[in-house]
Amino acid sequence: MRRILLSHGSGGEETQKLIKEIFIKHLGNDILNRLEDASILRVSSEIAFTTDSFTVSPPFFRGGDIGKLAVAGTVNDLAVMGARPLYLSVGFIIEEGFELESLEKIVRSMGEEASKTGVKVVAGDTKVVPKGQVDRIFINTSGIGEVVRKGLSAHNLRPGDVIIVSGTVGDHGACILAEREGMEFELPIESDCRSLWYLIAKILQTGAEVHAMRDPTRGGLAAVLNEWAEQSDVEIEVDEEEIPVKEPVRGLCELLGFEPTHLANEGMVVFAVAPDHAKLVLETLRSHPYGRDAKVIGRVVGKGKARVVLKTPYGAKRLMEAPSGELLPRIC
Amino acid sequence: MRRILLSHGSGGEETQKLIKEIFIKHLGNDILNRLEDASILRVSSEIAFTTDSFTVSPPFFRGGDIGKLAVAGTVNDLAVMGARPLYLSVGFIIEEGFELESLEKIVRSMGEEASKTGVKVVAGDTKVVPKGQVDRIFINTSGIGEVVRKGLSAHNLRPGDVIIVSGTVGDHGACILAEREGMEFELPIESDCRSLWYLIAKILQTGAEVHAMRDPTRGGLAAVLNEWAEQSDVEIEVDEEEIPVKEPVRGLCELLGFEPTHLANEGMVVFAVAPDHAKLVLETLRSHPYGRDAKVIGRVVGKGKARVVLKTPYGAKRLMEAPSGELLPRIC
Repeated sequence: MRRILLSHGSGGEETQKLIKEIFIKHLGNDILNRLEDASILRVSSEIAFTTDSFTVSPPFFRGGDIGKLAVAGTVNDLAVMGARPLYLSVGFIIEEGFELESLEKIVRSMGEEASKTGVKVVAGDTKVVPKGQVDRIFINTSGIGEVVRKGLSAHNLRPGDVIIVSGTVGDHGACILAEREGMEFELPIESDCRSLWYLIAKILQTGAEVHAMRDPTRGGLAAVLNEWAEQSDVEIEVDEEEIPVKEPVRGLCELLGFEPTHLANEGMVVFAVAPDHAKLVLETLRSHPYGRDAKVIGRVVGKGKARVVLKTPYGAKRLMEAPSGELLPRIC
Repeated sequence: MRRILLSHGSGGEETQKLIKEIFIKHLGNDILNRLEDASILRVSSEIAFTTDSFTVSPPFFRGGDIGKLAVAGTVNDLAVMGARPLYLSVGFIIEEGFELESLEKIVRSMGEEASKTGVKVVAGDTKVVPKGQVDRIFINTSGIGEVVRKGLSAHNLRPGDVIIVSGTVGDHGACILAEREGMEFELPIESDCRSLWYLIAKILQTGAEVHAMRDPTRGGLAAVLNEWAEQSDVEIEVDEEEIPVKEPVRGLCELLGFEPTHLANEGMVVFAVAPDHAKLVLETLRSHPYGRDAKVIGRVVGKGKARVVLKTPYGAKRLMEAPSGELLPRIC
């Protein structure tokens, strides 16, 4: 089996070979292929820019791999800011001895996910570090998008806004947890890892008055809602019963003592929508394969008291706390 | 001593605290402080975009640290493409147990180096991985610049072009090598790690006809010249005697069997300049503190035979090969 050698990261001949035989092969385009120190891009005057590093363990999981995740994650961070994803950079940090075949599988996934969303990888970097100094492979992606909808912001929620999720909660986190624990369920838990640009574009095209969007990755739904509450200084009320959670995800959480709302998604988006447009957003979501499980889960009930309140099925109310403590390392 | 915990990377409360107390403190600005999923930027219609990951070991070295390097490295990749560096993203991957004090020192360096060059950090991400799964700290920076000089390219060298280096060769690589081997020299070897934008801007302002620029990092001067020869399909001839190398760097190389031209710089730039403008470029470089040791080291002597020829002091000629093999891992 061919493996990654230190020489693949030395900037010399072997690096050039790796670039051509794996990276250009699967990610190549007219811009990347020039292999300059920086790529020259034509863009509109207002862009969105974001970065994310991916260290997920295991790097291959049900529903995706670290490559697909690295593209989808950054695409989604642009999309929720109302930006059409255009360009990605990719930085690999690879452990000496990593199988070339696995690397190629990961890079192929990246290429497939990028072309699904119409985004181009235009800049790259590869570092190889000696065995034992990194666990297998870490990937950073940074992304540039063209802003097509202005004013979306975590600071932008208002009393009356309706909170909608585009799908079930916690799927990615539960999948990684199950993989690590070696647990099998009757209905397998699959990561929701996928690029959400087209789903989000569809919502934006309706003209609905969306105030904020967010993909709840690390920290899950609870982290997003608490950040929104704090940044917009509003109180959000959530109906616990309305939060959609897949059966095996709920089972896993009960077994291991996790809250589904603390687990990451990687292909789900939370919306804060003006009340008159909630129905339009909900119906539009449900008409798309990625939004079939969309639900209204709550609303912004007031200004000036930054907190998230959970209404239980029995009518009781309690705080939905932001997650704290270790949670799951290397979930994304 | 306070240390990085897994909870600092979980996306919950502790992550928010780390962001505010270290990242915003040293890198904050009106854009970053909004803490959105992606930052919204106004840019000109033609931008340069680049990415680089930094894994240098040790993370603190004479002349800099991984933070300063991570800013300078990406700033320099933009600058050599004729772009004024404007915005950076920063992705940290940190080992559980890393000292918070060291992290703050690194982040402070980044802030200082960024403000020296007038570049803003506008996007960030932090991952913490369990002890033993990464060696201390890795940093990715991606950068966006505004193109102020078009047409610079590794594909752009022409017969007659004069090759100029802005300073001595191999300083950064030799410094890291000496630190790792615990070697002390009478004259200490210091990394040349620094941002080159203002030096390069000064050259561009002269209007001199520069065809290509490159900062010779991994693979050193030999890698840059060989890539230029190949991408522009030209033959480059270099006078070995003219290559400026600091005495202790030369001594270290002789001792350990390295070629100075294979060692990385992190604050030096190589130019290919139209013959009529070589004098102007050389004099302008020498009038700047970062270019005092600038030298003409060679020229493009023909088209259609992609190679780099080294003329020795005795008049003999041999190929200057692109470096191959392991070289030094984790040099940058």
